[in-house]
Amino acid sequence: MRNTTIAATLIALIVALAVTAQGPLADAKPSLDGMTVPAYTADGDLIRPEGYRTWVFVGASLGLSYSEGADEPEGPGAFTNVYIQPEAYRYFMETGEFPEGTMLPMDVFRPGSRESINQAGYFEKDFLGMEVAVKDSDRYEEGWAYLSFRDRSGGLRDSASAFPKDRCYDCHAEHAATDNVFTQFYPVLQRGE
Amino acid sequence: MRNTTIAATLIALIVALAVTAQGPLADAKPSLDGMTVPAYTADGDLIRPEGYRTWVFVGASLGLSYSEGADEPEGPGAFTNVYIQPEAYRYFMETGEFPEGTMLPMDVFRPGSRESINQAGYFEKDFLGMEVAVKDSDRYEEGWAYLSFRDRSGGLRDSASAFPKDRCYDCHAEHAATDNVFTQFYPVLQRGE
Repeated sequence: MRNTTIAATLIALIVALAVTAQGPLADAKPSLDGMTVPAYTADGDLIRPEGYRTWVFVGASLGLSYSEGADEPEGPGAFTNVYIQPEAYRYFMETGEFPEGTMLPMDVFRPGSRESINQAGYFEKDFLGMEVAVKDSDRYEEGWAYLSFRDRSGGLRDSASAFPKDRCYDCHAEHAATDNVFTQFYPVLQRGE
Repeated sequence: MRNTTIAATLIALIVALAVTAQGPLADAKPSLDGMTVPAYTADGDLIRPEGYRTWVFVGASLGLSYSEGADEPEGPGAFTNVYIQPEAYRYFMETGEFPEGTMLPMDVFRPGSRESINQAGYFEKDFLGMEVAVKDSDRYEEGWAYLSFRDRSGGLRDSASAFPKDRCYDCHAEHAATDNVFTQFYPVLQRGE
């Protein structure tokens, strides 16, 4: 009888501990404290994010066209470097979801070749522009929007309005592996690696 | 006379303030607190750094050969993504020098093409290996050493010994734009941009 009571008490204690340990910890989403969130002008244009070159790099490509109908340079095309906020990166790696406020800035570079000791292949040479994919369901009906900050003179605008839905969104929605993001092209975002 | 005294006092005060403001601030080097520094096994091999994919990305290339005599794959060659510790990045951007302990890990990826919506160009597909350039004058006579963590089975070793001097160092020393680092290939490290 005493043994049974002790055993029951122990079991109750173990269950209680297990529930306590699992409850708040299992439900806790990674913190987004300190994340640079999208900011907008009074007209609703996205303000160009700064400092993104110290965010987490997710992948590069050469010659892939993200903007349909863009005028491709002759040769190998352009390099792209895609970044994400460190907080959104950790959130994605832990949950598999991109949080609201995720921004994926993309630098575009014209490749260089056969300079210095380089005899073949391509390195990133001339800065051509910067585009951003942003997830903000309060602001954009489709959840995600795509913007380019390149101006006509080859410099960068301080703010930009979203491309029309059929220019970028539709293709991302149809072909991207994870919530409009082409994670299939970004080994760094492949979870469980 | 009184005006002269006041003027002299004010000038002395301004000079004192200027000296105070300039002295410690102008001499202060950016902090390296918290930087992941190189760690070694008892045998003197560099322990593979972890977590470098959240460090600062400095540049990508496709088909450039960093290791002389390496067997290049057919086709476009391999993508490389080079990283640096955030603290070393800030230090370099402010001073133009790479601090002791700088590590530049380089991921190597086999490119993919013509998958998903991709009709042309290349994205980063299969992880091939990871190499590191490390600046540690206490450890290496030349200051910098170059190591590959790729093992024979295509996985990663936990530690690696430096390549012989003539395999990597000599070429970096001769051709790299800044202290053995090919900053000429890394727009992100071009200061004053």
